[in-house]
Amino acid sequence: MTRSELFAQIKAKSSYLCVGLDTDIQKIPPSLRNEPDPIFAFNRAIIEATQAYAVAYKPNLAFYEALGPKGWESLQKTLEIIPKECFTIADAKRGDIGNTSGLYARAFFDKSASGLDFDSVTVAPYMGEDSVKPFLAFPGKWVILLALTSNVGSSDFQRLEVVKNAEVPHARALFEQVLMTSQNWGSHDQLMYVVGATRADQLQRIRELAPEHFLLVPGVGAQGGSLEEVSRYGMNRQCGLLVNSSRAIIYASSGADFAERAADEARKVQQEMAGYLETYL
Amino acid sequence: MTRSELFAQIKAKSSYLCVGLDTDIQKIPPSLRNEPDPIFAFNRAIIEATQAYAVAYKPNLAFYEALGPKGWESLQKTLEIIPKECFTIADAKRGDIGNTSGLYARAFFDKSASGLDFDSVTVAPYMGEDSVKPFLAFPGKWVILLALTSNVGSSDFQRLEVVKNAEVPHARALFEQVLMTSQNWGSHDQLMYVVGATRADQLQRIRELAPEHFLLVPGVGAQGGSLEEVSRYGMNRQCGLLVNSSRAIIYASSGADFAERAADEARKVQQEMAGYLETYL
Repeated sequence: MTRSELFAQIKAKSSYLCVGLDTDIQKIPPSLRNEPDPIFAFNRAIIEATQAYAVAYKPNLAFYEALGPKGWESLQKTLEIIPKECFTIADAKRGDIGNTSGLYARAFFDKSASGLDFDSVTVAPYMGEDSVKPFLAFPGKWVILLALTSNVGSSDFQRLEVVKNAEVPHARALFEQVLMTSQNWGSHDQLMYVVGATRADQLQRIRELAPEHFLLVPGVGAQGGSLEEVSRYGMNRQCGLLVNSSRAIIYASSGADFAERAADEARKVQQEMAGYLETYL
Repeated sequence: MTRSELFAQIKAKSSYLCVGLDTDIQKIPPSLRNEPDPIFAFNRAIIEATQAYAVAYKPNLAFYEALGPKGWESLQKTLEIIPKECFTIADAKRGDIGNTSGLYARAFFDKSASGLDFDSVTVAPYMGEDSVKPFLAFPGKWVILLALTSNVGSSDFQRLEVVKNAEVPHARALFEQVLMTSQNWGSHDQLMYVVGATRADQLQRIRELAPEHFLLVPGVGAQGGSLEEVSRYGMNRQCGLLVNSSRAIIYASSGADFAERAADEARKVQQEMAGYLETYL
């Protein structure tokens, strides 16, 4: 999917909501447990209920891997029923040396090899350029590189100040260096960033360093970030935001009305987003 | 597997060789292509041929994921035939927020969930403590944390100098900070490091920071590091080394004699290691 196709969808739906498919077999309604593939049945109901309000879906790979080969089958089937206009994200946080990353890219982008054909994959930056480039070699596909995550552990390394060399006048945080260095690897038509920032000053600083890129923002919803702040300080001329919500939508109810309640929650977020698109775009 | 069990095996086999199962469907001998599961057939032959010389096996997850659900089935079957005394490493380089890492841990450690029961998994440090701890919560299991990798991209971030705070008298490299910070998360009975270092000065510095830990060293063999240097400067009182070789062993021949030639290569490395254990242990 191209950047302009993504933006067109955002305008059409007045939404930049990404629904995270963190589907946990232990949390889905008991009524689905007798389905031949309960994970897929849950995802299908969630996707049908929310597709009018969401522009992207993000399966979290861990939830599928934890179920072994049948989890990968549920993932395949799920990906096939996501409407073609929606942007799909394999939240896999992969990253390895070049030839190995090339195989991970095939795992998520090459349907003839793995059965999967995502639009994008999340990638960890620690191993550097050659761990990211093989994903960027797939035309029409995207890398969403971890820059700043929203968890407590993000302060262990991501926020450390780094000194690139003696000529750098003052230190910057590692995640800022990731934002800067990685822009040499690919354009903003194939590279996005995971940015778990919800504070105005953080978002402004990130937009200084990456004005044009799409940002995938987790941590709004169950994790408690402010959608208003993210939208005001993170939006750019082509929206430039995908804001993820997982649990707050997909587990809005644990009963038989889970899909209906998911739709309600997704609609609420979409309506709030419609207002921000009016105001800040 | 405990540290002392691993050390006992190292002494029994006079070896600290890890064989990397980077099994590529496009590189295995044509004679195996008609097997019902060619990847498994290849791995079985390699494991049978090398198990007298290797103390560990390390499937590289990307190679299996690239094949979709059937790749995961080949991986399951492979893991089941690795001799119980051998240490098994899921080279997966995972890492996510806490609850997601918990599911990745189940994917690799909890056979009842995923069908897999590895002794250890490689984990990327970028997301910090809460991304690593869920793996450490599994008794008897190990995290092998990426510290310094051997690829070109390791200089992009891992070797950047970091300033932790004003009290740090002089900057250290990010990978050194990873070695230091992560030692607060678990003991050397559950935590190892990936260290792609082959130069004497690097290894000495790493042993200053992590004297007791096992190090998983890639890049010896096809990638050209010196086993002598690694052994002389990296070995500690309990050996403390697992040295990986993948392609140089498993693809020693592309013909029908591939297993025999893999055994020859593994034996050569083991014999060299036996000498270093005599000299440096």
